[in-house]
Amino acid sequence: MKNILGRELPDYIEGYGEVQPFEGAFENSGVKAQTAVVVKAVTPNEEKLVADFDALLDKVELKDGMVIAFHHHLRNGDYVLNMAIDALAKRGIKDLTVAASSIFPIHAPLVDHMKNGVVTKIYAAYMSGPVAKAVSNGELKYPAIMHTHGGRARLLESGDLHVDIAFIAAPTADEYGNINGVQGKSACGSIGYAMADAEYADIVVAVTDNLVPYPACPIHITQDKVDYVVKVDSIGDPAGIVSGTTQITKDPIGLKIAKMASEVMVASGLVKDGMSFQTGAGGTSLAVADELKHIMKEQGIVGSFAAGGITGYIVDMLNEGLFNSLFDVQCFDLKAVQSISTNPHHMLMSSSMYGNAHNKGAVVNKLDIMILGATEIDTDFNVNVTTASDGTIMGGSGGHSDTAAGSKLAIVVTNLVKSRTPIIKDRVTTVTTPGESVDVVVTERGIAVNPRRTDLIEKLKATRLPVMTIEELKNLAESMTGKPKAIELSDEIVAVVEYRDGTVIDVIKKPL
Amino acid sequence: MKNILGRELPDYIEGYGEVQPFEGAFENSGVKAQTAVVVKAVTPNEEKLVADFDALLDKVELKDGMVIAFHHHLRNGDYVLNMAIDALAKRGIKDLTVAASSIFPIHAPLVDHMKNGVVTKIYAAYMSGPVAKAVSNGELKYPAIMHTHGGRARLLESGDLHVDIAFIAAPTADEYGNINGVQGKSACGSIGYAMADAEYADIVVAVTDNLVPYPACPIHITQDKVDYVVKVDSIGDPAGIVSGTTQITKDPIGLKIAKMASEVMVASGLVKDGMSFQTGAGGTSLAVADELKHIMKEQGIVGSFAAGGITGYIVDMLNEGLFNSLFDVQCFDLKAVQSISTNPHHMLMSSSMYGNAHNKGAVVNKLDIMILGATEIDTDFNVNVTTASDGTIMGGSGGHSDTAAGSKLAIVVTNLVKSRTPIIKDRVTTVTTPGESVDVVVTERGIAVNPRRTDLIEKLKATRLPVMTIEELKNLAESMTGKPKAIELSDEIVAVVEYRDGTVIDVIKKPL
Repeated sequence: MKNILGRELPDYIEGYGEVQPFEGAFENSGVKAQTAVVVKAVTPNEEKLVADFDALLDKVELKDGMVIAFHHHLRNGDYVLNMAIDALAKRGIKDLTVAASSIFPIHAPLVDHMKNGVVTKIYAAYMSGPVAKAVSNGELKYPAIMHTHGGRARLLESGDLHVDIAFIAAPTADEYGNINGVQGKSACGSIGYAMADAEYADIVVAVTDNLVPYPACPIHITQDKVDYVVKVDSIGDPAGIVSGTTQITKDPIGLKIAKMASEVMVASGLVKDGMSFQTGAGGTSLAVADELKHIMKEQGIVGSFAAGGITGYIVDMLNEGLFNSLFDVQCFDLKAVQSISTNPHHMLMSSSMYGNAHNKGAVVNKLDIMILGATEIDTDFNVNVTTASDGTIMGGSGGHSDTAAGSKLAIVVTNLVKSRTPIIKDRVTTVTTPGESVDVVVTERGIAVNPRRTDLIEKLKATRLPVMTIEELKNLAESMTGKPKAIELSDEIVAVVEYRDGTVIDVIKKPL
Repeated sequence: MKNILGRELPDYIEGYGEVQPFEGAFENSGVKAQTAVVVKAVTPNEEKLVADFDALLDKVELKDGMVIAFHHHLRNGDYVLNMAIDALAKRGIKDLTVAASSIFPIHAPLVDHMKNGVVTKIYAAYMSGPVAKAVSNGELKYPAIMHTHGGRARLLESGDLHVDIAFIAAPTADEYGNINGVQGKSACGSIGYAMADAEYADIVVAVTDNLVPYPACPIHITQDKVDYVVKVDSIGDPAGIVSGTTQITKDPIGLKIAKMASEVMVASGLVKDGMSFQTGAGGTSLAVADELKHIMKEQGIVGSFAAGGITGYIVDMLNEGLFNSLFDVQCFDLKAVQSISTNPHHMLMSSSMYGNAHNKGAVVNKLDIMILGATEIDTDFNVNVTTASDGTIMGGSGGHSDTAAGSKLAIVVTNLVKSRTPIIKDRVTTVTTPGESVDVVVTERGIAVNPRRTDLIEKLKATRLPVMTIEELKNLAESMTGKPKAIELSDEIVAVVEYRDGTVIDVIKKPL
């Protein structure tokens, strides 16, 4: 069958199950039943602190086929995923599903666990490095499931993904399981992705290298959600957890794109008091924030909130009074960590609150402007941030589809050509975000507006911005690079791309 | 049948269902399934703000027999319960269950709704005033269900009580349902009892008199849990919401009891660094806090936390460095409200985190010393704080049984005789808290230790405190007042007293 975007999908995928095809960004909505959580009640005098992973695994019932969850706030510094899976592998457990909110190069040891059958399934919103490469090569027994950040909360809440054990990398915890992300040598700030794990996993384990006297303060995940606490020497490498600083691009093309994007924002009429804004941590995205900052300051505009993964640039905007609040699901740099630990207006949000399509209203629903990246865009405005142009996995939606769906104005900023490859194509290798959610594509050579947004086309026509059709933009790129050769893919499905509502928006096939 | 305390219970109670008898404080524990929550997903552009109750009731499906929930942080200043039930009554809805965390004299209009069949069932952890009197007189169609604060969270989490609509009195809210309790003219501080309502009710309505621009900051209940926001002129009478100040007793007997209780605490060995403590807002209870404060200061003791409903006295102890943190489920006075809104070490806790026996470990489990009140105590140490000695309802457990069960040392402080009636009896009119959870009874004339606590008896014998058996204490009281006449009760059950685990610890019968 084909979904509404014309993507060929099987009815059933081994290891995944029946495929519910994507039918449009808000078609699968309405009344949704969440799963029933099962809790082992803890009575007074019971202790939760265990000496190490071995002692922990002695206490919990282990079996083949378990689902083990992790959150990724420690990013490429995370030790916890490897420690936990190694410990389970030593016990001879097989067929594990690793449900990590994201996977980084540091998780390379998973590749061996995939090869020897310890790990046979992976869920992630983003993956890069050796694991992503191995999945692309078909080294995982079953297809990986790529979801969105909000989609992961939905998966857990709905019970579509039932987690047996969640390991929560806890920068700070007390012996009764109260956790925060803002203190300790491995402080990462927000732990927004871990909240759903703590709510919905059968067994919740806090793994900490900063055990503090009861009670931890502040508390981001509360004791009533946590079964065990494991003390380890180190949960991560601080150098990999947060960047010292995130940097605005110095590339003149990136700066030009940012300037044009800011003009699009202004022309849209959304840059005004009470506005809300989100951007990523990439160099060009940050440059857009910088442009916006200058405009807001010049015009005396005070926005309501900025959201998302938070960088020092956004913190500066808060501190300069340009936004009243921040909603933070993940801190990207040290300044963000420091801010969330001291400024009450810098608020932590869970990934469900951030982007879940099936709760009572996520923060993305209140977003005015979202700045997005892209690896590929097609003439239907579908965006790929999941696979490289050679078909291998090198990323994933993260919050891409969530924010695109929620925001009033979703702007993709990208160079028209990267590494001699045009970014705009007839057909993206993989659809991460459907074109209906993408309003504008801004490149250094031209700007294309989604034809659905006739209002915006009118507004931009009144400016001197180089507005053209997406086909014109594609032709322009191809005139520079020649028409790119279609990549050749096998029939083997190595990953399923779930839209935020749990429907399948695409599948990823192994490159030939 | 009889439960383990010898209380006669029917197998089945009309309007309540099958009776599961109380079998001991921790007998009903282990693995517990929570209920599956059903959520109506909110998509972008949908609005939650409605003009008034009428507009709200136009939007939700109304039917006879609904369960409507309220929290009681506005206490005797609360307007929301009456507004909501009046609005439902105007629509001709009948047979409502009112699940209010507590009921106060201000809720007197409920009595008419009981009489005319609009309200036929009530759940509450505490009730006083006209509603309590009417329930005692059998004016409610079905027996009221009296539970504990932690038990209410358990009722909602387990699905034993399914709430159709929760009305959350919101001192501050934005139009998308983010709520806090610390700002606005009706600020009440913590809204810990409302958290379970927001998690588990089918429809969650924020009722606010302080609608702020999105997003509210701080946020105690998040937008992803809230369906509608109703703006009203006033949610409550500030004079009834918080006391200006709470007062230590000036009664010399109360002060003597407090002094003795403090000596019991010291003798127990629990008054030391890292200790935790909770007391109520009554005059004698506060006097105990005052005694403890002096001891801690003198001895340079720093405790870990104080918990519960929080008063200015406890705030002072935090500010003087005597405790590292506070866990606050409800603020009793203005100083507590100010503190929770400014001091990060003054932490809000949900009622589940506070006292739910069926989660992964409540704060009461970590309590060292708990100071409790009593209306009656029997020679098995069972305590009644639910009914007066004439058999009418005038209170309820609140957190009494939760904290008694969790704490290492539960001390009841009470005058030996009140209004010429002895407090210690052969048999309490109603069991609120089982004797197994009560360690010591301190009166001005003598101290009785639960025989289970042989360790404590030894420790107290080494002091000059007037330790005696509970029977001796009872005889002493009776020597002053004469043996009290047993009250005469009918066979009509007007209320069921649920222990925190959902078993039935007693029933309340209509006095003759």
